[in-house]
Amino acid sequence: MKETLNIIKVGGGVVEDTASLASLLEQFAVLQGRKVLVHGGGRLATAMASSLGIESRMVGGRRITDEKMLQVVTMVYGGLVNKSIVAGLQAKGVKAIGLTGADGDVIRSHKRPLKRVKMDDGTEQMVDFGYVGDVDRVDALLLKQLIEGGTVPVVAPLTHDGEGHILNTNADTIAGSVACGLAEHYDVTLTFCFEKAGVLRDADDDGSVIPLINEEQFQQLTAEGIISGGMIPKLENAFQAIRQGVRQVVITHSDNIDGSKGTTIK
Amino acid sequence: MKETLNIIKVGGGVVEDTASLASLLEQFAVLQGRKVLVHGGGRLATAMASSLGIESRMVGGRRITDEKMLQVVTMVYGGLVNKSIVAGLQAKGVKAIGLTGADGDVIRSHKRPLKRVKMDDGTEQMVDFGYVGDVDRVDALLLKQLIEGGTVPVVAPLTHDGEGHILNTNADTIAGSVACGLAEHYDVTLTFCFEKAGVLRDADDDGSVIPLINEEQFQQLTAEGIISGGMIPKLENAFQAIRQGVRQVVITHSDNIDGSKGTTIK
Repeated sequence: MKETLNIIKVGGGVVEDTASLASLLEQFAVLQGRKVLVHGGGRLATAMASSLGIESRMVGGRRITDEKMLQVVTMVYGGLVNKSIVAGLQAKGVKAIGLTGADGDVIRSHKRPLKRVKMDDGTEQMVDFGYVGDVDRVDALLLKQLIEGGTVPVVAPLTHDGEGHILNTNADTIAGSVACGLAEHYDVTLTFCFEKAGVLRDADDDGSVIPLINEEQFQQLTAEGIISGGMIPKLENAFQAIRQGVRQVVITHSDNIDGSKGTTIK
Repeated sequence: MKETLNIIKVGGGVVEDTASLASLLEQFAVLQGRKVLVHGGGRLATAMASSLGIESRMVGGRRITDEKMLQVVTMVYGGLVNKSIVAGLQAKGVKAIGLTGADGDVIRSHKRPLKRVKMDDGTEQMVDFGYVGDVDRVDALLLKQLIEGGTVPVVAPLTHDGEGHILNTNADTIAGSVACGLAEHYDVTLTFCFEKAGVLRDADDDGSVIPLINEEQFQQLTAEGIISGGMIPKLENAFQAIRQGVRQVVITHSDNIDGSKGTTIK
């Protein structure tokens, strides 16, 4: 039987606020067994770019990463956010090791080609997202080697193309790819933490969490309009992870990273 | 017999210029055998701080690191510089892994206490250097584990205090500490690269490199005034490393990181 492994993904909102970051570190530190943390860092990069007089451009909820913005996200995600988390975890006795995809060649990606995107006005445009990476492969063996060596990987939302370029990469995608890669070696639970209590029947009622969703129920809930908007790609990614061997995916509030509450997908 | 290991230290000047960075990556990639790279990043942090409207304060050639400056050096050294080098080395087939001292708890330090410093006007003052770390210990076993696992550590000039604080740390000191730590496991050559051809008899003549210096010669050359200024602490550090088991220290130009030219200290 494979050993269990928890992969926790937290968004930028959690790490940019001192109190919620402290809570995250505390919860992650007491989580038993093998574990990996994947973090975002969104708004901190926007704030830093703004301080540097660099304009943040978003299309369809995704950042356009030009060369200057790539420098900012490399500094903020790979430096400031990643090292703050790592040093904070060390203070709690967790032997955290910060990684971008470039470190140890652990996550290789390619620069996203021009992509057709639906704009707010309903028209479609071909968009160049710039230095944004779509993941090609994860070196699960190196991750396993680090984990078995007693360290706890803390992964920033940056990858590389193998040709010398860092690429800005969605943290959900990284968490999913890392989970799928490690599923060969561990019994993986992937937990996405965000600002809601889970997948809700009623978006305004945190008490309406749907505790368990399988693929059939997902189709039905989507058809009924109960699951909609940004939750659809989140759940599609979750089911894709499960099809690739991840045991379960949990979507929950960042106050419950142990997955004791929230929505379980399997 | 121990396996040989080369530890190369390059200053901020080398990494901030595109051409010299490319040359460094090329030279480091072709270096045979086990290796570690330690980098500085000085002026890039000053430039970034200036863009953010943060004033750089130096006392006795050392940066005062207040909370804002700590954020800048964490971003610039741990993010921008470290990841640029790592991604650049990956493109040349080197499985580089970027580390600060916080990663894997690999270099623990303590915040420097107030220190008596001789000012430019000859007076002495007690100076608080802020978030600056003096190294306490290196986890050579973790470094060895990474090296034996096939990765090449690329170390940024940042450490941590084990209580959640990143500390700005002199890159020469880090290189020396890492070399001493690894000397137990490897036959270590430590190479300091800078903008001169080596230790010079005549500071204005790059052709006047002193090829070999032992401790007795060092005392004599210092007494004669041939070795002076900033070269004295550099050489004192070199001899300290040798007393702690490092086989030899090479001081050379960053165009010769293989140590084929320059000054050998042993």
